[in-house]
Amino acid sequence: MTSIKSVAVLTSGGDAPGMNAAIRAVVRACIYYNLKVFGIKRGYQGLIDDDMEELQSNSVSNIIQSGGTFLKSARSMDFRTEEGRKNAITNLKKRGIDALVVIGGDGTFTGARIFGEEHHFPIVGIPGTIDNDLYGTDYTIGYDTALNTVVEAVDKIRDTATAHSRLFFIEVMGRDAGFLALRSGIASGAEAILVPEVKTDFDQLEHFLQTGFSKKKTSSIVLVSEGDEIGGALKIAEQVGKEHPEYDVRVTILGHLQRGGSPSAFDRVIASRMGISAVEALLDNQEDVMVGLTNNQVVLTPFSEALKNKKPLNPQLLEITKILSI
Amino acid sequence: MTSIKSVAVLTSGGDAPGMNAAIRAVVRACIYYNLKVFGIKRGYQGLIDDDMEELQSNSVSNIIQSGGTFLKSARSMDFRTEEGRKNAITNLKKRGIDALVVIGGDGTFTGARIFGEEHHFPIVGIPGTIDNDLYGTDYTIGYDTALNTVVEAVDKIRDTATAHSRLFFIEVMGRDAGFLALRSGIASGAEAILVPEVKTDFDQLEHFLQTGFSKKKTSSIVLVSEGDEIGGALKIAEQVGKEHPEYDVRVTILGHLQRGGSPSAFDRVIASRMGISAVEALLDNQEDVMVGLTNNQVVLTPFSEALKNKKPLNPQLLEITKILSI
Amino acid sequence: MTSIKSVAVLTSGGDAPGMNAAIRAVVRACIYYNLKVFGIKRGYQGLIDDDMEELQSNSVSNIIQSGGTFLKSARSMDFRTEEGRKNAITNLKKRGIDALVVIGGDGTFTGARIFGEEHHFPIVGIPGTIDNDLYGTDYTIGYDTALNTVVEAVDKIRDTATAHSRLFFIEVMGRDAGFLALRSGIASGAEAILVPEVKTDFDQLEHFLQTGFSKKKTSSIVLVSEGDEIGGALKIAEQVGKEHPEYDVRVTILGHLQRGGSPSAFDRVIASRMGISAVEALLDNQEDVMVGLTNNQVVLTPFSEALKNKKPLNPQLLEITKILSI
Amino acid sequence: MTSIKSVAVLTSGGDAPGMNAAIRAVVRACIYYNLKVFGIKRGYQGLIDDDMEELQSNSVSNIIQSGGTFLKSARSMDFRTEEGRKNAITNLKKRGIDALVVIGGDGTFTGARIFGEEHHFPIVGIPGTIDNDLYGTDYTIGYDTALNTVVEAVDKIRDTATAHSRLFFIEVMGRDAGFLALRSGIASGAEAILVPEVKTDFDQLEHFLQTGFSKKKTSSIVLVSEGDEIGGALKIAEQVGKEHPEYDVRVTILGHLQRGGSPSAFDRVIASRMGISAVEALLDNQEDVMVGLTNNQVVLTPFSEALKNKKPLNPQLLEITKILSI
Repeated sequence: MTSIKSVAVLTSGGDAPGMNAAIRAVVRACIYYNLKVFGIKRGYQGLIDDDMEELQSNSVSNIIQSGGTFLKSARSMDFRTEEGRKNAITNLKKRGIDALVVIGGDGTFTGARIFGEEHHFPIVGIPGTIDNDLYGTDYTIGYDTALNTVVEAVDKIRDTATAHSRLFFIEVMGRDAGFLALRSGIASGAEAILVPEVKTDFDQLEHFLQTGFSKKKTSSIVLVSEGDEIGGALKIAEQVGKEHPEYDVRVTILGHLQRGGSPSAFDRVIASRMGISAVEALLDNQEDVMVGLTNNQVVLTPFSEALKNKKPLNPQLLEITKILSI
Repeated sequence: MTSIKSVAVLTSGGDAPGMNAAIRAVVRACIYYNLKVFGIKRGYQGLIDDDMEELQSNSVSNIIQSGGTFLKSARSMDFRTEEGRKNAITNLKKRGIDALVVIGGDGTFTGARIFGEEHHFPIVGIPGTIDNDLYGTDYTIGYDTALNTVVEAVDKIRDTATAHSRLFFIEVMGRDAGFLALRSGIASGAEAILVPEVKTDFDQLEHFLQTGFSKKKTSSIVLVSEGDEIGGALKIAEQVGKEHPEYDVRVTILGHLQRGGSPSAFDRVIASRMGISAVEALLDNQEDVMVGLTNNQVVLTPFSEALKNKKPLNPQLLEITKILSI
Repeated sequence: MTSIKSVAVLTSGGDAPGMNAAIRAVVRACIYYNLKVFGIKRGYQGLIDDDMEELQSNSVSNIIQSGGTFLKSARSMDFRTEEGRKNAITNLKKRGIDALVVIGGDGTFTGARIFGEEHHFPIVGIPGTIDNDLYGTDYTIGYDTALNTVVEAVDKIRDTATAHSRLFFIEVMGRDAGFLALRSGIASGAEAILVPEVKTDFDQLEHFLQTGFSKKKTSSIVLVSEGDEIGGALKIAEQVGKEHPEYDVRVTILGHLQRGGSPSAFDRVIASRMGISAVEALLDNQEDVMVGLTNNQVVLTPFSEALKNKKPLNPQLLEITKILSI
Repeated sequence: MTSIKSVAVLTSGGDAPGMNAAIRAVVRACIYYNLKVFGIKRGYQGLIDDDMEELQSNSVSNIIQSGGTFLKSARSMDFRTEEGRKNAITNLKKRGIDALVVIGGDGTFTGARIFGEEHHFPIVGIPGTIDNDLYGTDYTIGYDTALNTVVEAVDKIRDTATAHSRLFFIEVMGRDAGFLALRSGIASGAEAILVPEVKTDFDQLEHFLQTGFSKKKTSSIVLVSEGDEIGGALKIAEQVGKEHPEYDVRVTILGHLQRGGSPSAFDRVIASRMGISAVEALLDNQEDVMVGLTNNQVVLTPFSEALKNKKPLNPQLLEITKILSI
C-alpha cells in the first residue's frame, strides 16, 4: 500500500509534441486514483519559485492536440545548487506533495536523480524529447511527430529539387544521436544519411555522387544530423560544392520547427499510456525510475541505468538505406 | 542457395497508404540482389490478363510519398476460379517469373495461399490494410496513416463541437476490428469508444451521458467502429437522440478519406523494411508466409496461421480510456 | 466625433475557422483606440444571460491559429422574442456598453438588424461562414479554410478512386449556395460539379459518364452541394448506380469536419482586416452595416441590403469546369 | 480569327506550387479549342535542346495536386545569347508550333519579351512565383501556398517559443519584396515584421522589445524578409542579442521548403483560370502580354509594362500590424 496522496507534475528541458497529452494523462490518472495533483510551471525553476497550482480534470481539457507544453519549460540554474533544491523541497512539503512526475530528457532525469537521492523524494520520469536518445524506451514522446514534420518538409523540398535537378543537404536536429536523421531519411527516400554514430564514409558519399547522382541526373537529398562529425550540412555542402562544381548544391537547416506542431496519433497514445503508468508506478511505491515502452510493454528503468547507457541505432535500419537508394 | 531469378509484385484488395513505399522497397531490393522484377497491374486480375511490365530503379522514384498504389488494385472474380488461376500461372511461366510478392489483407493472402498450393509457386505476403486486423504483425501498412487522418478529422470536428456544446458520434472504418477506433479514440481524446470486440455497454454510455456530459456542459466525442454490433454511428445517435432530447446530437461518417493520403513516416519505414524482407525471405527459400513486424523485429508467419488467428485488441488500451475520459 | 467608449463582441450561428482571428482583431483594435471591450459567450443567448467579461490584449493571445470560436456560439430562441431582446439591452446598458460587433452569417445579421432598430443600438457585422453566401463581400471568413479542407479530403479520396477505378460522389456543405462545391471542385480536379444554382443537367452528367469515364477507365470525382435540387450525393449516386451497374460507385459525405481546423493564412488576414475595420466603422458612427472586402478594399453594406440580395456564383468559374474536365 | 494551330508551354525560373495546375489548364484549353499542345522540358534550355513532346488530356491527369513542375525548370545561359534563341525558333518552326505560353517570374518574362520581339513570335506569360512581386496581377501562382507553408511553420515554432518564453527571428523568402513576410506575419500573429520596402525602424523594434516583450514575458516572433536592408534574420538577431542579453534569442531560416508542397485551393483555382485565359488570349491574337487577376477579373498586361513597374505593398496591411501586435 502506498501513502501517496498528492502528486505534482512538471515539464523540463526542450519541449516536445505530446508533452501536453502526457500531462493530461498524469492529471486524470491522479483524479481517477483519488490523488490531488499540482501543475508546476517552468520546470524545476517553478518548483523553486513555488509557481504551481492544483489541477482539475477540465484543466487539461482540449490540450491533447496542442504542441509545446502548457506548463511551460525552462532550464534552471538554481536547481543545480543545493540551496535551490532546498527551496524546492520546502515548497513541496509546504503544499503536502508526496511525489513528483517529471517529463523531459536526460538533463531532466539527471536533476531528478540528484534531487530524489538528496531528499528521499519519490520521482518518476516520462521520456519526452524529439531526439529519441533515451535508453529504456523504444520511443520517446515527440519523436514520431518530429519524424513526420521532417518528412513533410523534405517532401516539399524534393518538389523543388526535382524541378531543378538539385542536390540538397538538409540538416535535422540530433546533437548526439542520429535517430531523427535515420528514420526521416528512410521515410523521405533520402539518397544518403549522415549520422553521428557512424563515422562518415566520405568515400561512400563521393561514390554515390559520382555514380548515383550523375547517372540519374535528377534530384538528390542527403539528410545530415546536426551532430555529424564533419560539422553539419553547411560544412559538408561547402566541401561537396567545391569538389563538384557541376552540381547545383543547396542547404536547408530545418531548425526549431521540428520541435513544434500538433502531436501525431502515435505520440498522443504513448504519452497517454506513459502518463497513466507513471502515476501507477508511484502508487506501486516505485521511485527514481523512468517509464518506457519496450516491445509495446510498459517497463520501468532506474534513472541511473537510463542515464548511464546509450541507446544504439537500429543496425537493420542503417543497412537498408543502401538498398533503398540504389 | 536459391534459384530465384525473377520476381513479380502486385497490390490487391483495399488500398492503403504506404503500399507504394512497399512496392519501391521490393523493386529496389530485387535490383540490389540482381533479380529481375515485374510490376503487375490491378492485382490478381492483371496477373490473369498478363497486364505487367518490368520495373527499373527509377520506375519507383518519387512514389514513396504517394497514397494509393501506382500498380492499382482490384478484386478479381476470375482468380476465384481454377481456370483463372491457370491463366495466371501460364503468364508467370511465360515471362520466367519464379516468385510473387503480394501486398494486401486477408482476402489477398487467401488467394495467395490457394494459388501457391495449387501450383507450388513461392509467394510472400506483405500486410497492407488500414484496419490493422492481421495476425502475425503488430502493425499493418497504412494503419498509422489512417490513425493520423482520423485524429486530424476529429480535431476539426471538436472545434465545432466545442463551439456549440454538441455531442458527436463519429464513425470510422473497421468492419470486424476496432483497432482504428480504439487508438484514434485515445489519441483524439474521445469520451467513449465503441468497438466490435466489446459488446457495447450501453448502460456505461448512458452513465457517461448522464454524468460526464451534463456535468461538463461542453463538447463530447464518441468514436464508433462501423462494425459495432449496435449498427454504426447513425443508429446509435438516433437512439441516444430519442432518449436525450436535451443534447444536440450530430453524426459524421468519415468514409473513404481514411484510406488515402500521403503515408506517415512510420508507415513509410515499416513498408520499406517489409518490402526488403519479403525479397530476402524469397531468397532464403521461404514461401507461403507473411512478413510482419513483432516487437520491432521482422518475423515470418505462414499464411495458414495468419489467416486462422484473430489478432486481439490490446487490453491495456481498452482499459485506459476509462481513466482518460474521467 | 464618436461618443463610443465600450464595445462588446460575439459570435453567432455556425462556427467558422478564422472567427478567433476576427475576435482578436476586434479586441486589439478597441484597446488601440482606447475603448473598453467585452466578450459575450454563446452568441445572443449569452447577451440575454449576461454571460460576458471584459477582455485584455492577452485574453486573445495565441488564438489566431485556433478553429472554432473561444467565445462559443449558439442559436438563441429567446433572442427571437421581444422580451429576450429587452433583457439583452438591459444587460448592455448596465455594463455601459455602447456598441456591438457581431460575427456570423445571415441569421446573425437578421437578429442584429431587428435588435439595432428596436433599441437604436449601433451594431457592425463581420461575415463569418464557410458557405461564402453573403452579399457585400467577395469572401467570408472561413470559406478559404473550408475550401482547403475539402480539397485535401478529395485528394485523399482520389488516391483510392484511382487505385480502384471508381466513381465517387462527394457531398460538401452549402444548403443554398454552391460556392464551396464550385471552387473546391475546380481545385480538386473534379470531373463534374453539381450546385443548387444550376438546374442539374442530368443529360450532361450522363454524357460525361458515357464518354469521359468509360473512355478514361480511371477514377472520377463528382462534387455535389448538399443543397442540390436532386437531393444530395446519396440520391444521385443511387440513380447513377442503377443506370450504370458497370461502374463501381461510392459516396462520401464530408460533413462537419468542413467547419473546423486551423484557419488558412488567407482567412486569418481577412479576419484581421475585418475585425479592425468593424471597430473603425463604429468609431466613424456607422451602424447596422456589415464589413466586407470587395476587390480587396474594405466596404460597408447596410444589413438590409446584405440580407435582401443573393450573391451570384462567378459565371466564369462555372464555365471553366467544362474545359478543365475534358 | 486566329491562325494558331499549335501551342507549346514551359515553366522557367524558380518553381512554385500551382505550376502543374497551370500547365494542366493550358493543355486542356488547347485540346478544348482544337489546338495541338507541346510540353517543353527544363524551360528555355529545353526549347534550345528540342526537349519537348506533344501532350494529351491524360498527360496532365492527377497533377493538379502536385508541387513543383513536371515539365521541370532551369535557368538557361544559352537563351541569353542570340545563337541560343536562333536554335529555339528553329525548333519551334520545325514542329509547326505557332505560339508559346511561359510560366514564371520576371526573369522568365524578360526572356520572353526579347525572344518575342526578335522573332515576331506570339507569347503569353503566366505569373508563377511564391514572391508575388509581379506588377499586373493581385496574386501570383504559388504565393498563397507559400503563405500557408510559412504560417504552419511559424505556428509550430510558436509552440516552442511559448514553452520557453523565447524571442524568435524567422527569415522568409523575398529578396526584393516583402509580400510573403507581410501577410504571413499578420497571419501568424507576429509581433513585428521587417520588409525591404520599409526602412527598418530599429528604434521601433527596440521600443517593442523594451515594452512589449518584457511586459508580456512570453514568446515573441519577428518575421524578417531575406531582402531586408539590415541583412537577414541572423544579422538582426545577433545585434538584438548583444543589446539584450536578457532575452533568449533564436533564429530559423525557413529556406527552400517554402517553394514546395501541394498547392492550396486558392492557387489551384487561379492557376486554372490563368492557364485557360492564356490560351484564349493567344486565340484572340494577343501577344507579349502577361495574364493576371486584378479585382478577381482576368486582365492582360504587356510584358514591358509588367517588367517596368514595381508592385507596391498594400499600405493598409502595413498599418494594421501595429494594431494587431498591441
